[in-house]
Amino acid sequence: MNEFELIYDVIAPTSCLRDDVLLGIGDDGAVLAPPSGQSLVVVADTLVAGRHFPPDFAPADIGYRAAAVNLSDIAAMGATPLWATLALTLPASDVDWVRGFAGGLADALRPASTALVGGDTTRGPLTVTVQIIGSLPAGSALTRAGARPGDLVYVSGSPGDAAAGLAAWPPPPAPSAALAQLFARFTRPTPRLALGVALRGLASSCVDVSDGLLADAGHLAARSGCALELDATRLPLSAALRETCAPSTALQHALTGGDDYELCFTLPPAALPRLGALAGPGMPPLTCIGRVVDGAGVRALGPDGRVLHFARPGFDHFNGANQQEQSGPMME
Amino acid sequence: MNEFELIYDVIAPTSCLRDDVLLGIGDDGAVLAPPSGQSLVVVADTLVAGRHFPPDFAPADIGYRAAAVNLSDIAAMGATPLWATLALTLPASDVDWVRGFAGGLADALRPASTALVGGDTTRGPLTVTVQIIGSLPAGSALTRAGARPGDLVYVSGSPGDAAAGLAAWPPPPAPSAALAQLFARFTRPTPRLALGVALRGLASSCVDVSDGLLADAGHLAARSGCALELDATRLPLSAALRETCAPSTALQHALTGGDDYELCFTLPPAALPRLGALAGPGMPPLTCIGRVVDGAGVRALGPDGRVLHFARPGFDHFNGANQQEQSGPMME
Repeated sequence: MNEFELIYDVIAPTSCLRDDVLLGIGDDGAVLAPPSGQSLVVVADTLVAGRHFPPDFAPADIGYRAAAVNLSDIAAMGATPLWATLALTLPASDVDWVRGFAGGLADALRPASTALVGGDTTRGPLTVTVQIIGSLPAGSALTRAGARPGDLVYVSGSPGDAAAGLAAWPPPPAPSAALAQLFARFTRPTPRLALGVALRGLASSCVDVSDGLLADAGHLAARSGCALELDATRLPLSAALRETCAPSTALQHALTGGDDYELCFTLPPAALPRLGALAGPGMPPLTCIGRVVDGAGVRALGPDGRVLHFARPGFDHFNGANQQEQSGPMME
Repeated sequence: MNEFELIYDVIAPTSCLRDDVLLGIGDDGAVLAPPSGQSLVVVADTLVAGRHFPPDFAPADIGYRAAAVNLSDIAAMGATPLWATLALTLPASDVDWVRGFAGGLADALRPASTALVGGDTTRGPLTVTVQIIGSLPAGSALTRAGARPGDLVYVSGSPGDAAAGLAAWPPPPAPSAALAQLFARFTRPTPRLALGVALRGLASSCVDVSDGLLADAGHLAARSGCALELDATRLPLSAALRETCAPSTALQHALTGGDDYELCFTLPPAALPRLGALAGPGMPPLTCIGRVVDGAGVRALGPDGRVLHFARPGFDHFNGANQQEQSGPMME
């Protein structure tokens, strides 16, 4: 099977269809009709084998992840995803691998009604870059800059699960139900798209938790010019995480582990009464885990009110150890 | 220098500024204001070290090429480029390398008034994916499908120069003027953006010549459902190419060599009188090199009217030899 057949026959048919795709895969570029009167949001994330996913990751999980980490960035901006492109670099033509990959990619894109409109396939070391274009009403984007002292800090879902799944990787032949849940959270994170849209006009700042809660909350603090104080005792640790890990390990996963793809956002007190409207089907639980104060940086306070310290508060590619991480620097 | 400084301090300042970039590098995504009433064109191309450029290519030339090959796709669609994202995978943090790369990237993006709005940087084998979003009036996109029997086939510039430059790579310490010109055509191809825009409403089909004239003309034939007959004696071989190569080699470079990034397009006879308006500053010379006929495929006829045959009419990544090529399958 040659390269062209590989793409047209395997990847293209997995894409969902959208009326606003005027010309899709197969020309020099895709032609798209943007929704009128809206702003566009563009995100791009690269996954490198052995760095952003374990070498033994299933092709379908790689495909899923490549789309999901980008959808998560779209969610963090409060946008609705529209179109994706895929730049896939592969060591060799392997139709089974591509079939698995394309299936996983579609597993993430299809529920988000996101059409794959083009891209590029090249031979080389396994690297996947997905870019997604979304839209939102002009002026409604959620950004990292906007948190103000007095705002409350929230996180969706149960942070730390994915890091615990990674820590236990590879899955044993018969994992416990709790462990299976943690692996699933690691391999198939859920982009919080509905939440992101609902937070427009409500949250004062927002980021997705890809590098770890402390690190990503640090981005909110830095860009907003204030400090975030997190109460570690309020972290919504899942039953699976608490069952699987010692309390100190669970806390470390929740605060410094990446890969959760939950949203961390700040909420002005005046917006609190409208928070209840965010509960419902498809919405993750939301937990207040701290507040915005004057100053700089992020600190997490333990049960005794002392600041917790961790060896690895965040992740930096070029200085860090060879650890999992998902997001880059130009867009997180 | 850590990853964040690397990007913010080195790459970000090289970007040109645009009023329609509402939020640029530094958040989860970029926020952009699309021109109202226009369609968007999205292109994406990946370069892999040693595959799409020689291992000893200068970082600035890699940066230039990563942007130029995408701008060329934008040109082939007849669009005007607006915004670019960059996914850069690097083996190590090397500030001199990134500085050179960013300079070359800007050398291509700035004359095209294209703003770098975000992306991702990761550690891994050297791989560069650039994506560019452009715009054009709704319904005016140039595509590969539209050539009709009776149309004339044109090519811009002088195809074969870049392939001759690659064939002579690496440059000797003191190349002849002709050879220096071929190297320049290989390292710094000119995206034909003004030509692409001018061809809107005029050309019946268009493609950029990245894989070789025969191969790319083949895409026009395939997507248009007809055949292209090229007259090899009419190929506009440059003086530098003719001076440097034997006639048969020059012909082979012009017909099968990639990397020229000229436009190959078809023109209905009725549009011929308007072709003169395309001459002028910034416009490459245009040469009629053949015609569209009934049938399928592309053939090039030699001086005696016989069909020329070449060992390598095009390039296919996963079956081809380890040869230079620029463009992928989902978008060429």
